[in-house]
Amino acid sequence: MAVVAVLGAGSWGTTFAKVLSDAGSEVTLWARRPEVAHAVRSTGRNPEYLPDVQLPAGLRATSDHREALDGADTVVLAVPSQSLRSNLAGWVADLPPGATLLSLAKGVELRTLERMSEVVREVAGVPADQVAVLSGPNLAREIAVGQPTATVIACTDHDRAVALQQACTTGYFRPYTNTDVVGCELGGAGKNVIALACGMAVGMGLGGNTTATIITRGLAEVARLGVALGARQETFAGLAGLGDLVATCSSPLSRNRTFGELLGRGSTLAQAQEAAHGQVAEGVKTCTALRELAARHRVEVPITDGVHRVCHEGAPVSAMARELLGRSTKPE
Amino acid sequence: MAVVAVLGAGSWGTTFAKVLSDAGSEVTLWARRPEVAHAVRSTGRNPEYLPDVQLPAGLRATSDHREALDGADTVVLAVPSQSLRSNLAGWVADLPPGATLLSLAKGVELRTLERMSEVVREVAGVPADQVAVLSGPNLAREIAVGQPTATVIACTDHDRAVALQQACTTGYFRPYTNTDVVGCELGGAGKNVIALACGMAVGMGLGGNTTATIITRGLAEVARLGVALGARQETFAGLAGLGDLVATCSSPLSRNRTFGELLGRGSTLAQAQEAAHGQVAEGVKTCTALRELAARHRVEVPITDGVHRVCHEGAPVSAMARELLGRSTKPE
Repeated sequence: MAVVAVLGAGSWGTTFAKVLSDAGSEVTLWARRPEVAHAVRSTGRNPEYLPDVQLPAGLRATSDHREALDGADTVVLAVPSQSLRSNLAGWVADLPPGATLLSLAKGVELRTLERMSEVVREVAGVPADQVAVLSGPNLAREIAVGQPTATVIACTDHDRAVALQQACTTGYFRPYTNTDVVGCELGGAGKNVIALACGMAVGMGLGGNTTATIITRGLAEVARLGVALGARQETFAGLAGLGDLVATCSSPLSRNRTFGELLGRGSTLAQAQEAAHGQVAEGVKTCTALRELAARHRVEVPITDGVHRVCHEGAPVSAMARELLGRSTKPE
Repeated sequence: MAVVAVLGAGSWGTTFAKVLSDAGSEVTLWARRPEVAHAVRSTGRNPEYLPDVQLPAGLRATSDHREALDGADTVVLAVPSQSLRSNLAGWVADLPPGATLLSLAKGVELRTLERMSEVVREVAGVPADQVAVLSGPNLAREIAVGQPTATVIACTDHDRAVALQQACTTGYFRPYTNTDVVGCELGGAGKNVIALACGMAVGMGLGGNTTATIITRGLAEVARLGVALGARQETFAGLAGLGDLVATCSSPLSRNRTFGELLGRGSTLAQAQEAAHGQVAEGVKTCTALRELAARHRVEVPITDGVHRVCHEGAPVSAMARELLGRSTKPE
């Protein structure tokens, strides 16, 4: 039986803690705020993110990270990508030696342009094969209510991936293993940017043909960049590439798509942020990091460029739409 | 300037005739029923399929196929896949020699298991490089109202593909050329079957994660079969594969997805057919043909098998859902 610390009690962290607990693992969920940990303990619910979902009775909660980490063989990192480094720095002294570190964050760090697994290795000072990532078509709310889904756990150490798989397999949650960490991370980061573009198109009143075209071109550009970084092409055709992208781009539950819709209807970034209760979608930061990575590796990423111009350079969304469909006719 | 006969005045045939006409081609639309041709001529509308769309003034219409074919350098075949053979047999004596024959039909013929381009070659007695197919994320209704989209025109003769491309390029319709006819046809046929499966999942109340998983696995199985038949893997990652699949699986405008939803909510095939105004979705027939093709080439197509069992063997949809997500855990 796996002993797992889930660090971060947002909607995905809480949901994944539930999955692990349902799978028979011994799980402690760490929440930054004592009142959230207290609510989970006393009511079995996370009032902030999943107020209507009953969490398993065996799921423990604490706001003391040492208590969560004590005796854990698996540590799940469920904090936003841009704050993973600073959070992990505060935990690193208490990480159990040899524990598998599994990142749920989807993004690329600004400035360093590091993937999450690189940040983890660097800050925790562990070898690559001790770090895993999880990515797939995983809208948290659907999983929280037990709807069936599949996901991918990637680790260069196949045995660790299998151990993680066993720790979280339930009747409704089916993980597949993969050794392509780079591909899974790029798929997870890139999809937030492409979902922003899809949301913009929807917000402009465009339909399913346009969205499908953006998804197709978007996956191609994320895969191009991923392969340049060492990922395998096939990973992008799988659940952590296409699967995650389609789920995120198609669902009104996706924060990035919803945020893009606000921009597509003419909101400024500040207005969209206000409408999203002060939160900026992950893709708004990721587009900047991916664009710089692409420039460094000389890969063309026209959709990512367009999203960046709309989010950070004040370009109108209509210009992006024209550009995406107005390229000269040529072989596919 | 291309001189084009569009044979078939259903919603896609009528829409594509509009696209060609908007692109500057000289187009005659053939409708089986004289009253439809008359309505298009006198009102500029197709009252049956696109009552609220104003067709271009230059678009001609007739119910005499000889009049439509007279002087055409391009013949667009816009009839359902299972009736293409019998329709074409009636037109073949009047086809202008050397004309490019472009099929819009998406399916595989029952019994013969031939793709549409094979049927055309056989019945018209023309070489392969005279036959082209068009496929992509092309929900007719969206294109009819001028929403931007892209598509793929595939022909083994690149020059003919380019001529077709020029004949139908407009500000809102952007065709790309490809020489992989088999891949485009398999993508177009297979997506209707996968859209039925997605519709069943939606009808059962499942969400975006499940749909995304079906799309991912579905594309993989269609691509496996396509490659076994000689298609190129890359075609399935493009607009005629992924693009068409996502558009069809995500849109409530898709007949196949809508038909699947009825089955997912517990309708029998007969009840669903009645609710769909007597029409059976293309995928209901295509699943049988693809399943047989797959068996012949020893390719596993679990989703197609599942759809076939629900449509033709009375299996409950719930069994299919369980099966798709209940396979043993393994590497992706």
